Amino acid sequence: MSDRTKTDKTAVEPLDQALVDGVLGRRPRALAKAITLAESTRPDHARRAARLLDALLPHTGRSIRVGISGSPGAGKSTFIEALGLALIAQGRRVAVLAVDPSSTVSGGSILGDKTRMERLSVHPDAYIRPSPSRGALGGVGEKTREAMLICEAAGFDVVIVETVGVGQSETTVAGMVDLFTLIQLPNSGDDLQAMKKGVVELADVIVVNKADIDPDAAELARRQIAGALALLHSPTSHAAAVVVTASAARGRGILEFWTEVERLHAEWTQSGALAEKRSRQGVDWMWARIDAGLRSRFRSNPRVRAELDSLTRSVARGDVAPTAAALRLLDRAESTNC
Amino acid sequence: MSDRTKTDKTAVEPLDQALVDGVLGRRPRALAKAITLAESTRPDHARRAARLLDALLPHTGRSIRVGISGSPGAGKSTFIEALGLALIAQGRRVAVLAVDPSSTVSGGSILGDKTRMERLSVHPDAYIRPSPSRGALGGVGEKTREAMLICEAAGFDVVIVETVGVGQSETTVAGMVDLFTLIQLPNSGDDLQAMKKGVVELADVIVVNKADIDPDAAELARRQIAGALALLHSPTSHAAAVVVTASAARGRGILEFWTEVERLHAEWTQSGALAEKRSRQGVDWMWARIDAGLRSRFRSNPRVRAELDSLTRSVARGDVAPTAAALRLLDRAESTNC
Repeated sequence: MSDRTKTDKTAVEPLDQALVDGVLGRRPRALAKAITLAESTRPDHARRAARLLDALLPHTGRSIRVGISGSPGAGKSTFIEALGLALIAQGRRVAVLAVDPSSTVSGGSILGDKTRMERLSVHPDAYIRPSPSRGALGGVGEKTREAMLICEAAGFDVVIVETVGVGQSETTVAGMVDLFTLIQLPNSGDDLQAMKKGVVELADVIVVNKADIDPDAAELARRQIAGALALLHSPTSHAAAVVVTASAARGRGILEFWTEVERLHAEWTQSGALAEKRSRQGVDWMWARIDAGLRSRFRSNPRVRAELDSLTRSVARGDVAPTAAALRLLDRAESTNC
Repeated sequence: MSDRTKTDKTAVEPLDQALVDGVLGRRPRALAKAITLAESTRPDHARRAARLLDALLPHTGRSIRVGISGSPGAGKSTFIEALGLALIAQGRRVAVLAVDPSSTVSGGSILGDKTRMERLSVHPDAYIRPSPSRGALGGVGEKTREAMLICEAAGFDVVIVETVGVGQSETTVAGMVDLFTLIQLPNSGDDLQAMKKGVVELADVIVVNKADIDPDAAELARRQIAGALALLHSPTSHAAAVVVTASAARGRGILEFWTEVERLHAEWTQSGALAEKRSRQGVDWMWARIDAGLRSRFRSNPRVRAELDSLTRSVARGDVAPTAAALRLLDRAESTNC
């Protein structure tokens, strides 16, 4: 299959070997150019990017992929900067990619202003990439997965994918990283930060940040969160998240956090759980992209477009049953295929 | 729009007015026949069912829709039977529908054996419907939503949708009911029953069942679960679930449970939250059906079928990037449309 597919692709778009070599040679401009290509919404670019990814793929998979989420104010940027610098001091290369669904609403980007991570952003062993605009298929983080693979091919040992607590972004990010981290403020009880339903259950590691403000409160919060997680998570279905305290602003708890990350990563590598997770993530991602592509085509079908809005309103009002509406729209799409 | 759509449909499948009248007249055989029609995988049946649903829709929406989940052994059947009989004693009519994804694996059905709810199943004011086999689109609970609407048109005041803690079924059921209930055993800490990640966060009400065995342990479990939920749920994003204790086998706590359900239901009706939830559920369900339909057509495309398995394996092995694989398969599907 692979041969035939590749032959087909070669006929359409030639492989940009110079770009492949540039990425593998760890040249910053080649890296940026490759990610820009992968993020492009132009169909010919998408095909060139697919060719590029194919060529880079054998050189990917060797980094630790960490997702970091948390509400604004939890100190995410400070934490990521402190972590990045600590890892670089150990001789590693660190890439930070942002998934920011809110940027399309606010017009801004959580990483658009690089001064947010002043020291990390200028370090030669770091690469910070702001969140891309939404791709052709409109998916959150649609091209972040590709950017992650390109960074791996460019020899980054750690890829951090950052997201804010909005919409589907956490689920998407948790679906592309090895470990998902949630940064929390050291409040307890119902002062705990606003969180979307289900986000806590995605976390492998929870960091109670800003622990320096009130170490006792932070330790109490850590124990409360750990207790709650132990209660809600069954040992048979999923290990409860590890909860640690940190003070990113003072550089405390950063290495302890990373020790936990490496411990879990090594454990899952040994047991085969990591390989299985990555394999499953890949297939899930393929289907997510297929579904998005099918839906995009469906939405652009003229006969569907003519009825979609009014039918959606009728369903919302309860005048038309959802399945009946779906059936009608699918009929419309079918009848215009030829 | 509605007129045109209905005219189109009339041309294809005539409306079975006798069946509509039978359902609205609350005749058991008409009810069973209508649900069987809705569950059928035959395309002409699907169109007749869509017509039927359209006609019944104005008579739906007046019941309380309750989802009930819990692992085997938690006492779900006993609880539902006790609840159903208590509601009937209050003069209500109760329908119980099962969504059982495991039945396709085990070959059995959680409600296939009606002796499981001996007294409720023979009561004239109750209707118990075992889980249907998977529909044409392969979705969990694909036709349960239709069965629920038909039951409402047949004058059932309470529709209980029962599911077991497997796979996507809880999310699907939570997406079609007004309130989602989780039944738990009174164990605490890491003895808490195996639960899929995220299921707890779907719950509006949690019942600690079998409280008669050890009332103190049950009360402790209730407080622990309530505390954990208060900690993990932000008050701004979602009210923490109500947690109650019960002993279904002894008929204790059943009415207290129902009082909580009615209180929440009345509160959400008043605030408009219920109407909004049902409206959103309808549109989400329409899109879920559209996505399933598009995927089903995609999978049956001969050129896709020729490559899907090998490409899936390549993606799982990490030899092909997921997005590249998706793009190739979408190209195959596109090129064979005409």
